[in-house]
Amino acid sequence: MELSEDELVAAISRVLSGEQPGVVLGLGDDAAVLEPASGQQILTTDLLIEGVHFDPASISPHDLGAKAVTVNVSDVAAMGGSPRAAVASIVLRTDVEAAWVMELYAGMRDACTDYALSLVGGDTNRGPAVVVSVTVVGEVAPGRAVTRSGARPGDQIVVTGSLGAAAGGFAVSKASAARVGEALSAPWGRELVDAFERPVARVGEGQVLARRGATAMMDLSDGLAKDLHRLCAASGVGARLELEAIPVAPALRAATEWLEADPLELAVGFGEDYELLATFGEGDVDRAREGLDPFGVTLTAVGTIIEGSGIVAVDADGRDAPLEAKGWDHFS
Amino acid sequence: MELSEDELVAAISRVLSGEQPGVVLGLGDDAAVLEPASGQQILTTDLLIEGVHFDPASISPHDLGAKAVTVNVSDVAAMGGSPRAAVASIVLRTDVEAAWVMELYAGMRDACTDYALSLVGGDTNRGPAVVVSVTVVGEVAPGRAVTRSGARPGDQIVVTGSLGAAAGGFAVSKASAARVGEALSAPWGRELVDAFERPVARVGEGQVLARRGATAMMDLSDGLAKDLHRLCAASGVGARLELEAIPVAPALRAATEWLEADPLELAVGFGEDYELLATFGEGDVDRAREGLDPFGVTLTAVGTIIEGSGIVAVDADGRDAPLEAKGWDHFS
Repeated sequence: MELSEDELVAAISRVLSGEQPGVVLGLGDDAAVLEPASGQQILTTDLLIEGVHFDPASISPHDLGAKAVTVNVSDVAAMGGSPRAAVASIVLRTDVEAAWVMELYAGMRDACTDYALSLVGGDTNRGPAVVVSVTVVGEVAPGRAVTRSGARPGDQIVVTGSLGAAAGGFAVSKASAARVGEALSAPWGRELVDAFERPVARVGEGQVLARRGATAMMDLSDGLAKDLHRLCAASGVGARLELEAIPVAPALRAATEWLEADPLELAVGFGEDYELLATFGEGDVDRAREGLDPFGVTLTAVGTIIEGSGIVAVDADGRDAPLEAKGWDHFS
Repeated sequence: MELSEDELVAAISRVLSGEQPGVVLGLGDDAAVLEPASGQQILTTDLLIEGVHFDPASISPHDLGAKAVTVNVSDVAAMGGSPRAAVASIVLRTDVEAAWVMELYAGMRDACTDYALSLVGGDTNRGPAVVVSVTVVGEVAPGRAVTRSGARPGDQIVVTGSLGAAAGGFAVSKASAARVGEALSAPWGRELVDAFERPVARVGEGQVLARRGATAMMDLSDGLAKDLHRLCAASGVGARLELEAIPVAPALRAATEWLEADPLELAVGFGEDYELLATFGEGDVDRAREGLDPFGVTLTAVGTIIEGSGIVAVDADGRDAPLEAKGWDHFS
């Protein structure tokens, strides 16, 4: 790192230059200033840590920056809100090149452009490992935020898109060079890696689901098993999950032989898909599904909210068994 | 760390329980939801890294948590705004005890109580070093935020309180056990350590200075020399600094012999004092000073804004010399 802190801020300012609607004061002062928000404010923060969430040898700094923004935008989407602005605090090892940092910021900037929010602050520090900590503020019409706690017995459980591709991408990123080559020469290889490194936040979809009556909603960051347990715990209910109905990503199914793992297990247990998990009163699912047509995104019913607590998984033969809250745990 | 992520969140929720005015939805969902803000929104983020900003062996987790909030609140104060809510992203080594984490959150909670903001979100992750990343949102009346860029030639340069005590506290924290004992047995020892470990953000003071005509303002986190250079660069002006006028902390002066360093040099070059640096039109300083009387905080004129660029330091004998932008640089 040959740049001083002030030189780095100046370089980052150049990456982030350009018009930012609603921003009174962006990068470079003590704090950013935004025009007044309409509605309630949403606030969320999430970070990516080298060696825990990513390996700098396998993800590009551009993708890493974009993902750090996207995972936060996904949390705003899961409330049914709109993202508005982001700030980033970055820890860099001293051996990280300035060009790598510029690409990281370019990735954050591009993701902000994609989701129509403004990157208004960035703090950089040296430290023992790369950490990218992003906070996003957003807004939502008063009283319209969809929480995790509104699911009621009888509600249908739905998920957007398909699950498990990120798990496959993670497996590819951890494989030996020979096996990576094999994966990337298959039609599903790049798709899996992209799902893990370039997730998409369902912002418009979340707003539609909120308007069409979602009783509870959250994003799938830690796996359906674990996240559905959280939604049920917050709502004080249980769930019956139809394993057969879970929309396993086709690319993951295609990779079954290479993976030497059960795609369904990965789809339920891994996470990082950033699809939305929601619940709807029984009559509302079809209308919600139609609402997603313009996005080209599917909405799949995967089970039912029941009284009690915990999740019962039902397999293709109608046998049921308790489903544990397994999945991604940053302390396991 | 014997707790799972969900158990930790539950424990943190207990630490953070209690009424939080203006908070619609706090910890535990995808994102927090706040009541609509009045005025423009302020957004700032700052992090503390083990081995860079703090040594866990010398600062308590409670003080560390409080400081992580305070340094962000100080940035809001430097805009003339009011802090409203905070979120924290924490990286923990796996060997960190759950009790340590609870104390860290209790420190954040207590600082939030002191400055009347709400801690509404906390994300915890494991990693190679402890990192505490806090983001604070605040508000300010439209058009009333005080930036770094409004200083004009002829303006007086002022600072609140006194400078350099944090530098002394840092020196004590780095000293050998015998020398620490010597320092802490002197009347100034604890005062210096407290200044470094328990800084105070000048929130009310910043609002008074903003209302009483501050043309530019920022907080002194990286030292007067460096931060005044930044203010001058942002405003497109230079400065003439009267070294004799700088309010060196009495406790630092008392420690001169122990320190074996020039207190004035530490007061100008180290930072971490979180006092406010501001500029005022020539006739406005006295009124601003009177405004701080209720806080028991002094306001000292330390120089004048001039045309051009850079800082000229004038010593007791009237000799002047350029002052370099030395100070805390996270990349030096």
